[in-house]
Amino acid sequence: MKYNNLGNSGILVSELSFGSWVTFGNTTDSTLAFDLMKKAYEGGINMFDNAEGYTAGSSETVMGDAVQQGIEEGVWERSDLVLTTKIFFGIKAGPNARGCSRKHIVEGTQAALKRMKLDYFDLVFCHRPDPRTPIEETVRAMNHIIDKGWAFYWGTSEWDATQITKACEVADRLGLIRPVMDQVQYNMFHRDKVERDYQPLYNDYGYGLTIWSPLASGILTGKYSGNNVPEGSRLAQEEYKWLKDSKFVKQADQITRTDNLKPIAEEIGCSLAQLAIAWCVANPKVSTTILGATSVKQLDQNLAALDYVEKLTPDVMTRIEEIIKSKPAVDEIYVQTTGLRSGPNY
Amino acid sequence: MKYNNLGNSGILVSELSFGSWVTFGNTTDSTLAFDLMKKAYEGGINMFDNAEGYTAGSSETVMGDAVQQGIEEGVWERSDLVLTTKIFFGIKAGPNARGCSRKHIVEGTQAALKRMKLDYFDLVFCHRPDPRTPIEETVRAMNHIIDKGWAFYWGTSEWDATQITKACEVADRLGLIRPVMDQVQYNMFHRDKVERDYQPLYNDYGYGLTIWSPLASGILTGKYSGNNVPEGSRLAQEEYKWLKDSKFVKQADQITRTDNLKPIAEEIGCSLAQLAIAWCVANPKVSTTILGATSVKQLDQNLAALDYVEKLTPDVMTRIEEIIKSKPAVDEIYVQTTGLRSGPNY
Amino acid sequence: MKYNNLGNSGILVSELSFGSWVTFGNTTDSTLAFDLMKKAYEGGINMFDNAEGYTAGSSETVMGDAVQQGIEEGVWERSDLVLTTKIFFGIKAGPNARGCSRKHIVEGTQAALKRMKLDYFDLVFCHRPDPRTPIEETVRAMNHIIDKGWAFYWGTSEWDATQITKACEVADRLGLIRPVMDQVQYNMFHRDKVERDYQPLYNDYGYGLTIWSPLASGILTGKYSGNNVPEGSRLAQEEYKWLKDSKFVKQADQITRTDNLKPIAEEIGCSLAQLAIAWCVANPKVSTTILGATSVKQLDQNLAALDYVEKLTPDVMTRIEEIIKSKPAVDEIYVQTTGLRSGPNY
Amino acid sequence: MKYNNLGNSGILVSELSFGSWVTFGNTTDSTLAFDLMKKAYEGGINMFDNAEGYTAGSSETVMGDAVQQGIEEGVWERSDLVLTTKIFFGIKAGPNARGCSRKHIVEGTQAALKRMKLDYFDLVFCHRPDPRTPIEETVRAMNHIIDKGWAFYWGTSEWDATQITKACEVADRLGLIRPVMDQVQYNMFHRDKVERDYQPLYNDYGYGLTIWSPLASGILTGKYSGNNVPEGSRLAQEEYKWLKDSKFVKQADQITRTDNLKPIAEEIGCSLAQLAIAWCVANPKVSTTILGATSVKQLDQNLAALDYVEKLTPDVMTRIEEIIKSKPAVDEIYVQTTGLRSGPNY
Repeated sequence: MKYNNLGNSGILVSELSFGSWVTFGNTTDSTLAFDLMKKAYEGGINMFDNAEGYTAGSSETVMGDAVQQGIEEGVWERSDLVLTTKIFFGIKAGPNARGCSRKHIVEGTQAALKRMKLDYFDLVFCHRPDPRTPIEETVRAMNHIIDKGWAFYWGTSEWDATQITKACEVADRLGLIRPVMDQVQYNMFHRDKVERDYQPLYNDYGYGLTIWSPLASGILTGKYSGNNVPEGSRLAQEEYKWLKDSKFVKQADQITRTDNLKPIAEEIGCSLAQLAIAWCVANPKVSTTILGATSVKQLDQNLAALDYVEKLTPDVMTRIEEIIKSKPAVDEIYVQTTGLRSGPNY
Repeated sequence: MKYNNLGNSGILVSELSFGSWVTFGNTTDSTLAFDLMKKAYEGGINMFDNAEGYTAGSSETVMGDAVQQGIEEGVWERSDLVLTTKIFFGIKAGPNARGCSRKHIVEGTQAALKRMKLDYFDLVFCHRPDPRTPIEETVRAMNHIIDKGWAFYWGTSEWDATQITKACEVADRLGLIRPVMDQVQYNMFHRDKVERDYQPLYNDYGYGLTIWSPLASGILTGKYSGNNVPEGSRLAQEEYKWLKDSKFVKQADQITRTDNLKPIAEEIGCSLAQLAIAWCVANPKVSTTILGATSVKQLDQNLAALDYVEKLTPDVMTRIEEIIKSKPAVDEIYVQTTGLRSGPNY
Repeated sequence: MKYNNLGNSGILVSELSFGSWVTFGNTTDSTLAFDLMKKAYEGGINMFDNAEGYTAGSSETVMGDAVQQGIEEGVWERSDLVLTTKIFFGIKAGPNARGCSRKHIVEGTQAALKRMKLDYFDLVFCHRPDPRTPIEETVRAMNHIIDKGWAFYWGTSEWDATQITKACEVADRLGLIRPVMDQVQYNMFHRDKVERDYQPLYNDYGYGLTIWSPLASGILTGKYSGNNVPEGSRLAQEEYKWLKDSKFVKQADQITRTDNLKPIAEEIGCSLAQLAIAWCVANPKVSTTILGATSVKQLDQNLAALDYVEKLTPDVMTRIEEIIKSKPAVDEIYVQTTGLRSGPNY
Repeated sequence: MKYNNLGNSGILVSELSFGSWVTFGNTTDSTLAFDLMKKAYEGGINMFDNAEGYTAGSSETVMGDAVQQGIEEGVWERSDLVLTTKIFFGIKAGPNARGCSRKHIVEGTQAALKRMKLDYFDLVFCHRPDPRTPIEETVRAMNHIIDKGWAFYWGTSEWDATQITKACEVADRLGLIRPVMDQVQYNMFHRDKVERDYQPLYNDYGYGLTIWSPLASGILTGKYSGNNVPEGSRLAQEEYKWLKDSKFVKQADQITRTDNLKPIAEEIGCSLAQLAIAWCVANPKVSTTILGATSVKQLDQNLAALDYVEKLTPDVMTRIEEIIKSKPAVDEIYVQTTGLRSGPNY
């Protein structure tokens, strides 16, 4: 396991990390939660990701219990862990119960600390952009969180490049701490933000990435091969019906393209899931790839994906591109305007 | 003719303006150039748009001559006019002959002033983003242009929202003058930047728009009806072969949709071109719509488009939307996150 | 009930809110106070307004008890509420017992938190301008309050436009948090500040308004019809003799004009009080209209005013203007200078 | 003649100054203009006031000729004089021909310098607020004027306190030069701005005043005694019909009150006009009182007003107040809130 700087910050995160999304407080009980986290930690993972919005706070409660158990059992100390939460979705209805206002950020973070029985998080993310709150208010509120000692670093999640640019520049103008990372969806079928939109963020701010859904909600595991949703998989659950109905999942050719990756996976000796995870890890802009897991065995298999990163040679990567056909087009206007053309028109 | 503030600035620009693109220094000789500008001015137009890149500087030479002729003949004074240029494309090859470096901005602006025989422009645009120049350098260089007295205001052209946000915020941090407007393509078939990407720019900076190609390179005039390129039209010229070959023009259904607009144009008593121009003018974010023209008659017809703006009632606008089917989709992530949903998941 | 952003901030306030002025700690006992607040909350109100100066702090004590009772009974959580106080008038005599000095703002806010048994307010207002304290001192002190975690946002109350402009600009210069709202008197007979003086504040700062006295101290309920002060009404109380003696109340034609509104109220099916409240709510600059109440029934009736906002069509509004004759005159100097006049003199 | 600092600046202006308004380029020919200015200069006046808007630029041309004549004849050197202009009204129609945009300020100042045959002004005023131009743009443009060497100081004219506050604060934020003075109407019947609205400007910025219309367009000379407009007076001219028709002039009781001042004027041995001028000079906030004149004799008489300033003892001033009844009311809210009252309510 390698440890990467989280963007332009001094904290080091393991290249794979462990997330509670979908599972904790839901299908995963406390015993399993601890077993999974212990397994992850022993495998070299130091970052454990959470959000107030996961199962309405239960996920944090479960993870908080597991963290305490690990401390009590001498598995880890608090300082060994990089613990995160993400504020935005709240845990109930109400006009100020969600969003990136100063009110919700402060109240939400305090409530999350209580649920997780912590004095502080390592990272707190603004889980979504909030078009109803001025970005300056959010920048100030996140700095307040840090000043209070409730977090060491702050970041964004699924903000667009313009919003992140604004947040960084506002912070610079006010002499405040910039956000240092986004938590963004990234996988073989979802690449535009990371590979196209965020380009200026890497150059200008050294922005870091903690990426989620490396398996594209399971599609890249190959389990939907032939378009049949297996009994018990996430897409079969009523609660995730929206995922199944979404345009995203419906694009059946993603499943076909996944099937077409099989020869490459076989060639380098890994599963499709391992190939998909290794492919994310191989992107040097990705600080950490967040894994979910519902069993220790599954986690073990996913951790083993690291063994295959070095097998993604330029040649293999080119063949993958030809199969997944998802490389974002570079904005034409750039091609037109940055080269030296013979005529002056556009 | 109404006069609008150019974004968050005190200068007033006519809602229609006159551009030299494609025509001046090319198919339009000096006599016609002056006749066109005089006609435009008498029709209430006060803004005349140019760029160093138009016909490699010849366009500026021709417009500069016409401006002088108007002064000498007492048609206008210099202060009556809002004269612009756009710096980026240069007039020749060479590594520093284009772009938004301090070197090219200063050298390019000085050369443009000389070609146009002016002491100063009213507006100078950075004609494209320059990914090879730090935006801070460009912001400083454009402020240098203004401090020298070579321009009153500066703007961007076809920059994306992230780049403009950065330019504005960098200016704020340094106490410099922000850009106040973009020159952006906008018409019934090209709406994403103006109607979607730039939304935060209107709220945060009062960004102004001078829009080009209201007729979609002629498609919206209806002259390509049936997909045949008429002899002598711009698309038939060898120099504009790239336009013809581009995906943009190839989308034959734009021509079909244009044909479908005919009943609406007939109903309100205008031509298709007038409908397309009036539709641009009706957008309150648009400070000025730039018209090109190759004859006084054509200019006259386009100026008359203003008579039909008030006929674009909400009902007519709705019917137009149903025909052109080009309204930008609002980013799904926003829809998901700003409403109050019962569950906390995303 | 709609929830509006409080000016240029991310917090959302209900379009109607509940204020303790005149009533709490005075004619309203603790039981009634809780009943009123519960009724208000169930009706959708989330903002509850207070001030140190209301009944010398007793109002805050009573409201604080009610807030706790609601938490204990599971009616609301602290984060569901937007709780405010206003600092200026103090609760006793003494040279530093009032005003907007750093000393009184800090001491006053701490005392108010104690009386209300809170860790923090959502909003703290400077209840009046303090000409004896430099505005920069007040801006810094209010930022101190926020940095300490004692408030999320700060505002002004009955400050004039010059003072608010200064506060915002001083905050900008120092990189501090601007005030975001004023608490200002606004009703059919008191409109100058909101509709004339504050205009630049909306444009420049997106300033928000929490307005008080929507019923003009009761005049707009029609209860003074015929100029007789009913037994038991606020104007009949000795303590509010100054209200009765004031020029404001003495203008008997306000009472007459109120009587003249009756046909409109009847036409749209509401009471005079409901008409007056709906009229305030209909102004889009008003973030929230603060209601007082002495009985649950009265509160119920006032909440129902929301049903009539949509009935205030442009036509009805015009007829109301003709009756109340209170529209502020636009400053002549502006009319003189912004049009294009043929001569250059003033 | 005393010389006062012009507000918080180092330049010294004579307590009386000479303005060209109404007269130069109109009823006053070049010979008379020079004679008047020479008389004024010999009487100790060093400041000569002008505006682009006075008689469409002719006033500047006439004054410029007189300044040159004085230099050629050895009456004064350029550096002996404080020469001003005011930019806003322009000299012709056209959307950008007036206002406080960067374009008009630069073009207008350059044109004024040319008309007056000067390299620089001492003072340039923004002759009116321009609600269509952001104040920051105007602050920057006026600093540009100073940086170019076209003016030493800049100021405002008839701006309200909020606008001046904003201009000063924006200048502070950007490290630019503040405006230092307003040119504001001030006389016994027009006092609100100077004595009420501008109070914070004196305290906060040491704002200076160059005041115009000390004689209230002639009313305070007593020449309208009995309400008859004398043949040949300004109010009898067609061009100033708007003055006659204005509410201001119509208030006949101003004429009555002027008549009632006669006993005081007689008592201290001066004319009514001299009393009115001396009364303005006596206000220590007034840096200079601008006099117009149509004859050398009239100017002589007005200069002599200085002899009576010291006779305006507190007792005389009190009696004047009782007659003119124009002292601005102090905002009630201030009286209510800044004193120590026994109860906490308002």
